[in-house]
Amino acid sequence: MADINRQALLLPEPTLRRLPWYLAHIKTLKNRNEAFISTTRLADAVAVDPSQIAKDLSFLGIRGKTRIGYEVDVLEATLREFLGFSRTHNAIIAGTGSLGAALIADRGLQHYGLNIVAGIDIDPALKGTSICNVPVFDPSELPGLVKKLDAAIGILAVPVEAAQATAQAMIDAGLPALWNFTPTRIRVPENVPVVVTNTSIYSHLAVMYNRLASLENESNNDK
Amino acid sequence: MADINRQALLLPEPTLRRLPWYLAHIKTLKNRNEAFISTTRLADAVAVDPSQIAKDLSFLGIRGKTRIGYEVDVLEATLREFLGFSRTHNAIIAGTGSLGAALIADRGLQHYGLNIVAGIDIDPALKGTSICNVPVFDPSELPGLVKKLDAAIGILAVPVEAAQATAQAMIDAGLPALWNFTPTRIRVPENVPVVVTNTSIYSHLAVMYNRLASLENESNNDK
Repeated sequence: MADINRQALLLPEPTLRRLPWYLAHIKTLKNRNEAFISTTRLADAVAVDPSQIAKDLSFLGIRGKTRIGYEVDVLEATLREFLGFSRTHNAIIAGTGSLGAALIADRGLQHYGLNIVAGIDIDPALKGTSICNVPVFDPSELPGLVKKLDAAIGILAVPVEAAQATAQAMIDAGLPALWNFTPTRIRVPENVPVVVTNTSIYSHLAVMYNRLASLENESNNDK
Repeated sequence: MADINRQALLLPEPTLRRLPWYLAHIKTLKNRNEAFISTTRLADAVAVDPSQIAKDLSFLGIRGKTRIGYEVDVLEATLREFLGFSRTHNAIIAGTGSLGAALIADRGLQHYGLNIVAGIDIDPALKGTSICNVPVFDPSELPGLVKKLDAAIGILAVPVEAAQATAQAMIDAGLPALWNFTPTRIRVPENVPVVVTNTSIYSHLAVMYNRLASLENESNNDK
């Protein structure tokens, strides 16, 4: 095996979005004690074209065996490592209100390599407290925390109106990646390389409500 | 004003994803007590082309005034109503473990029209308990709960291996919309109209880790 940092390859985003689907199905197979999976069966289960799956998995440097397919254990371990889920990424969360506290409490994220090591909050009453053993600090302590805790990811769970300023403070403190849960579009300085990933739960709600209303409208028209 | 259900229009998904950005910026303006916003200034703030903004907002049936722009209060109220955030959508959540409990605890969702009215969980110890005043039931009670609580949305926060079966049970119980937080691709029966919205937080993590690793690799190569 070549000793390369496979994750350092810049992969196409659609591939990176599909790989976790394969991993999810593989976990289901493991639960059923199945040892092998063919591309065809995986394709059926996740509704992705078999040739696309073969192409996606070729990035991982593993190939299925003729008539047997992929070894479930190997595929799981390789996918987890490749996706960065088996490594620990330290994160600091800004905003420990409702959403922030919920993200801290979701231990599932740890299973995917995300380790929230500290929170910051402008509420002076929260300073010095902790949520599920994650200590909460004053925002002024951010630069020191980033270094001391070896954090690379800043999670934005602040109110909309504080999002951009908090993002800038995180970038200034040296965090190279921001995970943005606010509905704000974060603007980053052009001269600093920063990764911004948006999880727009409110946009998803808007899409769902719209589709649902159209569906209800359709069924009323049918009557 | 025409008395139509505006949300019943099937909007393009990119528009539906952008509208919440505009709303987020408008909230920031309200906080600063600003009464008007021009398309140009909104475009700058959210990094979207002004012509695109005008097009997106034309779906709402409101137009800006020359040299003044949009009235902040009107735009906020119209956007919230149009996006479905000002109406209440009852939801039942499946899986009240770590992620499910976190979603129940996130009161922010209520502000966006999502009202989680009940949870279901296979763990018999959880039956009869409640999380933040949301009661937890046995999955067998789902069909009755959907009718009794007038729920339209099923939230999937179960483990990967239970996702497809739980989704099917929710569809069978008459829920027309599923919000899927699992990394599983949910398959829906062809003869039943069901809206599936995926919030793939683990896919987002995978994309973020990959971009971060590429960034680190790049900066090492520069040295």
